[in-house]
Amino acid sequence: MKLKAMYSFLSDDLAAVEEELERTVRSEYGPLGEAALHLLQAGGKRIRPVFVLLSARFGHYDFERIKHVAVALELIHMASLVHDDVIDDADVRRGRPTIKARWSNRFAMYTGDYLFARSLERMAELDSPRAHQVLAKTIVEVCRGEIEQIKDKYRFDQPLRTYLRRIRRKTALLIAASCQLGALAAGAPEAVANRLYWFGHYVGMSFQITDDILDFTGTEEQLGKPAGSDLQQGNVTLPVLYALCDEQVRAKITAVNADTDVEEMAAVLAAIKQTDAIERSYALSDRYLEKALRLLNELPANEARTLLHDLALYIGKRDY
Amino acid sequence: MKLKAMYSFLSDDLAAVEEELERTVRSEYGPLGEAALHLLQAGGKRIRPVFVLLSARFGHYDFERIKHVAVALELIHMASLVHDDVIDDADVRRGRPTIKARWSNRFAMYTGDYLFARSLERMAELDSPRAHQVLAKTIVEVCRGEIEQIKDKYRFDQPLRTYLRRIRRKTALLIAASCQLGALAAGAPEAVANRLYWFGHYVGMSFQITDDILDFTGTEEQLGKPAGSDLQQGNVTLPVLYALCDEQVRAKITAVNADTDVEEMAAVLAAIKQTDAIERSYALSDRYLEKALRLLNELPANEARTLLHDLALYIGKRDY
Repeated sequence: MKLKAMYSFLSDDLAAVEEELERTVRSEYGPLGEAALHLLQAGGKRIRPVFVLLSARFGHYDFERIKHVAVALELIHMASLVHDDVIDDADVRRGRPTIKARWSNRFAMYTGDYLFARSLERMAELDSPRAHQVLAKTIVEVCRGEIEQIKDKYRFDQPLRTYLRRIRRKTALLIAASCQLGALAAGAPEAVANRLYWFGHYVGMSFQITDDILDFTGTEEQLGKPAGSDLQQGNVTLPVLYALCDEQVRAKITAVNADTDVEEMAAVLAAIKQTDAIERSYALSDRYLEKALRLLNELPANEARTLLHDLALYIGKRDY
Repeated sequence: MKLKAMYSFLSDDLAAVEEELERTVRSEYGPLGEAALHLLQAGGKRIRPVFVLLSARFGHYDFERIKHVAVALELIHMASLVHDDVIDDADVRRGRPTIKARWSNRFAMYTGDYLFARSLERMAELDSPRAHQVLAKTIVEVCRGEIEQIKDKYRFDQPLRTYLRRIRRKTALLIAASCQLGALAAGAPEAVANRLYWFGHYVGMSFQITDDILDFTGTEEQLGKPAGSDLQQGNVTLPVLYALCDEQVRAKITAVNADTDVEEMAAVLAAIKQTDAIERSYALSDRYLEKALRLLNELPANEARTLLHDLALYIGKRDY
């Protein structure tokens, strides 16, 4: 099933969010606008706006109000991608050269800062101190996570909880905040906003684990970058942690560094896939997904809840 | 006169702001906290907090409320310094190694992001949508300016207005916003907040021009970095633009690049100082300062106004 078809319900509003995103970046002349448009046009699933819009259905849904939150969260996400590419020294994202590769690290730093600032500008349209607090705390945590990500690179002795904390900060937090902020901005009760927060958290954990698995099982065409890129860049993900339990595979993995060549990498990937690492990773992703789905049952039954259910299954189970 | 002695009036509240700044960065463990503390302890004039506190005196001064704005603006300033050092490839600031020099460009990028996020967290304490809007728009403009700064490097044919727009975005905007936000957060009338905004703008312009002059006239000890560093890094400042009017000096200046050695740089600096560039630069700085002081006359007379007057003179005329 295609993701788009799933939310025809919301398609008009999502199209309007897309237009707002494009208008925001097109309003900027020169290289900054060009870089932002480059990033926007590379696509993406717009998962954060979708969660914002759906969560807002649990309150008084007013698109003119909620659109600012949806646009703001996608802009923050885009900003973090640009900075991540600097951290990861990544040259390709979604099959296109990254901003840092096409321009420079410095330029990428400022493009990220700029997108981030534009996102604040949108959030400032919202007269809700509580929403500002939630967002600010989320961003602080996301930044903390990025620093840890640098520190944890090529650290093959890190415990599972270090990985889980990292993906929480890298992915789950912003999805959780999208759900919570969508609900809060629509004036949904705090209890509902909290459940949606944890729903977003569990979906986000499942989503990132799936993403980390796909780095091993996907093709270069599907991934828009070579398979195994995460490991090559030193990101110790869940399949890697599980595969390290196998002593022979462990030796191969710990020898990986930025200079490992294509053939060697292919051998390491093949070795990892021969262990039970992928299977165990899917099992953990599924456990998070189940927690997310259970939480949904505690929310009022409506069309948005059904869509959140389908969406959670879609992004937890996707194969590209 | 020492800046400190000038605002004994505010010294308790400023000391409390300093404590809050230190507590904010000390609350972070690991390299992130270490880097932020390194930056904080390098000192600085805390000009933005001073302007916030003084401007708040034109409304209902409540330190427990206004301190969030003062801390937030200094944190934003610190964040922008860290990112500027990446842009400028600067190894020394205020006589200490920069974060990018001591750690790395990537780490500096995230330290900046983190400080910026902590600043938002503080601002979120303030229940004022108008203040959030002002701040967001300021940050968007500051980011635009940073990109221009990259683009304008070593461009010796740029017109004066390009330089003025750049220093407006680099310095004057955040000082103007400090004045405006201090007033707004204290519930001062919009007209007063607007005058304070323009006061801050003119002071900021004068401040940055003086800073750009000091890069030529200061000693390495005073500057905490070698004289002429700005020019060497390709920043085309006001004294450079004026000196370019002299055909012989022009040839020397346009030959400068990142690899120009110490002796050559000394010759270029000496040549610039023999023109009327420094004098003309001081004249323009003075014109901005006069505009700032004239605006103060339109504000209610109080102790804060007297201090703003002295402070403007101090930072527009300083010789270090």
